[in-house]
Amino acid sequence: MMTELPVDQVRTLLAVVDEGTFDAAAAALHVTPSAVSQRIKTLEQRIGRVLLMRTKPVRPTASGQVVVRFARQLAALDQDAQRELGITGESGPARLSIAVNADSLATWFLPALTRVPRMSEVCFELYREDETQTAELLREGRVMAAVTSSPAAVTGCLVRPLGLARYLPAASPDFVDRHRTGPLRRWLPGAPVIVFDQHDELQDRFVRSLARADAARHRHSVPTSEGFRDAVAAGLGWGLVPEPQARPLLESGALVELDPGRHWDVPLYWQQWKLDVRALSLVADTITSAAAEALHPLPS
Amino acid sequence: MMTELPVDQVRTLLAVVDEGTFDAAAAALHVTPSAVSQRIKTLEQRIGRVLLMRTKPVRPTASGQVVVRFARQLAALDQDAQRELGITGESGPARLSIAVNADSLATWFLPALTRVPRMSEVCFELYREDETQTAELLREGRVMAAVTSSPAAVTGCLVRPLGLARYLPAASPDFVDRHRTGPLRRWLPGAPVIVFDQHDELQDRFVRSLARADAARHRHSVPTSEGFRDAVAAGLGWGLVPEPQARPLLESGALVELDPGRHWDVPLYWQQWKLDVRALSLVADTITSAAAEALHPLPS
Repeated sequence: MMTELPVDQVRTLLAVVDEGTFDAAAAALHVTPSAVSQRIKTLEQRIGRVLLMRTKPVRPTASGQVVVRFARQLAALDQDAQRELGITGESGPARLSIAVNADSLATWFLPALTRVPRMSEVCFELYREDETQTAELLREGRVMAAVTSSPAAVTGCLVRPLGLARYLPAASPDFVDRHRTGPLRRWLPGAPVIVFDQHDELQDRFVRSLARADAARHRHSVPTSEGFRDAVAAGLGWGLVPEPQARPLLESGALVELDPGRHWDVPLYWQQWKLDVRALSLVADTITSAAAEALHPLPS
Repeated sequence: MMTELPVDQVRTLLAVVDEGTFDAAAAALHVTPSAVSQRIKTLEQRIGRVLLMRTKPVRPTASGQVVVRFARQLAALDQDAQRELGITGESGPARLSIAVNADSLATWFLPALTRVPRMSEVCFELYREDETQTAELLREGRVMAAVTSSPAAVTGCLVRPLGLARYLPAASPDFVDRHRTGPLRRWLPGAPVIVFDQHDELQDRFVRSLARADAARHRHSVPTSEGFRDAVAAGLGWGLVPEPQARPLLESGALVELDPGRHWDVPLYWQQWKLDVRALSLVADTITSAAAEALHPLPS
């Protein structure tokens, strides 16, 4: 029968993953590189699996990710207990690592964070990832919580629905004048388009919902939420713009809707470690209630 | 003596790197996975070096990166020649991949891009990276050009100075009221701070220029340029805000300068492949002249 995982070895694994190399981990832990190497080997033998790929930087294997997640949860619980016991010392404020998609970060998420009570006890470590990828960071144990489009709970996590993020197909008025010929489904597949990055399929999916085609190969990728909006407003291409960013530009006439009343909705969920850490619960409550105001309701 | 590198093998290597796996590359090239594997092996034997780490996704070794860069340059020249010959066919508009730091992208870079003449012949593929990391993407052959803080030319690249990006140490007025006690060098090292991400050392360096200390460990990381500015304005911490983003908020009173007149400058350079590709030259000229207007002059 297996007893508990040895905490010093688990923490060493985490240090190696966070620092990227055995040498850097050794420096951070104030031990020799060979001690680090020995602890990892012992842990791998005990678990009976390879935990690290010896690349530069090192990367945890699938089994390694489980141990990394465990190590981070351990650290969070430890910090939480120390804080409750009034031991401040080394630990400082609670570190909350959260993965968020760029459009949420640019619209409703940051104002929501500022409403979290007792901010002085919390440090936010935000990671920006596509909403289809944020759950992966949770799985890898890199973050404690994520805004994600995936309703399927990551192992060890609980899920709460947030709402629908609405996107409006839009372009600048002069872009429409230059490219419009006949109905939308005829001209849109050939018109220059803005995408967020190479993985962004939103625009292709929208065009497929109109016609048997993807969006044009003449595409610019602009990997920031505000840059995307600005590129559409500057007439470089059309794109699906988050509703809160589109509204003021539609009102000022800088953008026009390509198909008024038509929109594209992306469901968003909050997933977090099933862990009784006080700061994390406070944030989860604040975020979910802010999302309920900022997003459209999910169909039940 | 070594003759030319076999172009089909070089292109296959590029496809494997871009698609991430041998199977995906095989599908993209319409050949069998074993043909892909055979071509890579033959190329590795010919060059006498391992070119790919067989991770998931695969990653080029240092030697592999040289071949990848060669493959991309080859593709760019081929496209350029075809366009000049009036052969449109498969190639479509020229793809220009450029790495840009987030603050440039959020301020002067995108308006500059919209001024590039003959936009209909160009597709921009922008990558967002820290200005200390963008040169690495150039070295790996992932981009053709970069806005970087490094004046040392990457192999095969030419460098043009762009100017100084200016940052102002700032916070919200109520944040200053809450934390100010005595001179700046006394209270700033202990006050909550906003950083862009874990690699952002700008705030630490600024504090070190005032006192024998880093910025506080109570730090929030907000990895978007606009999010960073909004977090500072919301009073979550102080931070070095890009001057063009700070100005309107200083005028409206949403931000105050921590040390009026004091600033932090980051030199920026344009680096690009030494390659006679017409679209790339047009973009370089537009970007450098826009930067001359938007940034402060570099000390000569």
